Amino acid sequence: MQPGGEGATGATGPSVAEIGEFAMVAAITARLGTTPAVLLGPGDDAAVLACPDGRVVATTDVLIEDRHFRRAWSSAYDIGRKAAAQNLADVVAVGAWPTALLVGLAVPGDLRVSWALELTDGLRDEAALVSAAVIGGDLTRSEHVVISVAALGDLSGAAPITRAGARPGDVVAVCGRLGWAEAGRAVLSRGFRSPRAVVAAHQRPEPPYGAGPEAAALGAHALVDVSDGLVQDLGHVAAASGVTIDLAGVALPADQPVRDVGAALGTDPQAFVLTGGDDHALAACFPAGTTLPARWRVVGRVLGGDPMVTVDGASYEGSGGWDHFR
Amino acid sequence: MQPGGEGATGATGPSVAEIGEFAMVAAITARLGTTPAVLLGPGDDAAVLACPDGRVVATTDVLIEDRHFRRAWSSAYDIGRKAAAQNLADVVAVGAWPTALLVGLAVPGDLRVSWALELTDGLRDEAALVSAAVIGGDLTRSEHVVISVAALGDLSGAAPITRAGARPGDVVAVCGRLGWAEAGRAVLSRGFRSPRAVVAAHQRPEPPYGAGPEAAALGAHALVDVSDGLVQDLGHVAAASGVTIDLAGVALPADQPVRDVGAALGTDPQAFVLTGGDDHALAACFPAGTTLPARWRVVGRVLGGDPMVTVDGASYEGSGGWDHFR
Repeated sequence: MQPGGEGATGATGPSVAEIGEFAMVAAITARLGTTPAVLLGPGDDAAVLACPDGRVVATTDVLIEDRHFRRAWSSAYDIGRKAAAQNLADVVAVGAWPTALLVGLAVPGDLRVSWALELTDGLRDEAALVSAAVIGGDLTRSEHVVISVAALGDLSGAAPITRAGARPGDVVAVCGRLGWAEAGRAVLSRGFRSPRAVVAAHQRPEPPYGAGPEAAALGAHALVDVSDGLVQDLGHVAAASGVTIDLAGVALPADQPVRDVGAALGTDPQAFVLTGGDDHALAACFPAGTTLPARWRVVGRVLGGDPMVTVDGASYEGSGGWDHFR
Repeated sequence: MQPGGEGATGATGPSVAEIGEFAMVAAITARLGTTPAVLLGPGDDAAVLACPDGRVVATTDVLIEDRHFRRAWSSAYDIGRKAAAQNLADVVAVGAWPTALLVGLAVPGDLRVSWALELTDGLRDEAALVSAAVIGGDLTRSEHVVISVAALGDLSGAAPITRAGARPGDVVAVCGRLGWAEAGRAVLSRGFRSPRAVVAAHQRPEPPYGAGPEAAALGAHALVDVSDGLVQDLGHVAAASGVTIDLAGVALPADQPVRDVGAALGTDPQAFVLTGGDDHALAACFPAGTTLPARWRVVGRVLGGDPMVTVDGASYEGSGGWDHFR
């Protein structure tokens, strides 16, 4: 359930400090769903989740206000969707299905209760896309909103697909958008709210969740979530696998809305494609000859050689991608 | 391995921004240990942990600088120990053994690299006390230090002990310190550094980890981590179980260092015992007649009646404990 619009983000109503920590936790918990895998849900010292596979996949990402999101740019609901999405994407990026989220939330005391509840709805609804549930969390106070999410997942008997298995001769393929979210961030940071498609992509990524387990079933040798930029994230695969990855520029055209942003801002739209993060596409290295479903686009190949990523055989001259301290 | 002293907290040396996100992550990862349960450790999109029980216990707590810790009051190493401890304590508080931690860390760019590495050592060493390992994490930038930890654990075939199982006739027992950490916080907040024992208890809690699985093996009906204060945390047990819990004041004397603080500050030392958090003692409700090991002290009993906590039959007049928004 998505709130009606920006008016629903709640500039009025009681604050979190006014209702207190325990009433706020109770209100959040009341909005959460559950799944058969949740054996003990929120409300105790810890939760208990079924892991019939005998292994659990686990990952965490922290979102800091004004660094990973801005309350002026995104609704609480979309921020919740995004916080869940980037963690769920990390689970599918080893070939597993997400099963649960833990959410640590730190907020200013004067934050509206309604904002926290809409955030909760977003977390819940994004998790529900993959039949996962929020099983626990923590609420505390801070000057700026901090959203820390841990995601758990299940491999269903399969081996995890890591970054380390790429082999010379593999084809490199991508599933999902490239450059949309970064183009959206670029226009928002200049005070614009359009093109609407790229702004929406920044506000609420749409990771191709099913493509992770699909890549594992197709026999992918390596798999990675494109969260910091294609060149940079494939650089991790190249380093972990000890291979060169060569991308074909012609196979990585900017989509129309991204080209529109490039034209409007006077920047190379392919830079968004090669270095833009936050869309959470998946990139995989498959054995040559693998028949790929249509949503996977072949964009390059794996070569023997020094661990690096090249574009059309040459090192990429632009910034490789995102470093939070640069 | 504990650093030599406060001089080791690193006012010099390069900053995190100077070496960058990826070098910092590599330096952190190089200091971590592993265990046989870690099937895929740090460095990929997600980690994989063995859960031979077929269930996993999961919990999370977020620590915010100047709210949960102060860099002026505690070494980075002790802050790491504490961040791990409060999460590991939540795992044992359902009767499970901790197996792994995920650590989300957000730090200012000008933070010294050495500070982050000492924090890492503290997290690692506290986890090692229970043979758990740091299996993954996230590093990003923020104005203040944020440490978000998720802990995972294993029930080894046992049922989780929740807050909901207390029954009239049970005895209430506590294992671990009460009031020490809060007394330490009280003296630190007034600019003192002694009594040393309570300051150390604030800086580095010592949860009685083994007592959680022990309580489960002894047949505890309910179990809770005393993180916000005994009256408040047992209040959660009373509410979840639908019982009255009556504490015996005479069974809850303040220990000598806590009495010393009460005398110095002119406050009732038993208030620290009844409402002080952060020591991470365990409180459990056992069937009457259970033979308890010496480290468990009987402090009260479970009665039929309204869900509430009383002291010597009367409602406690002081503040119940900690609310992060009060």
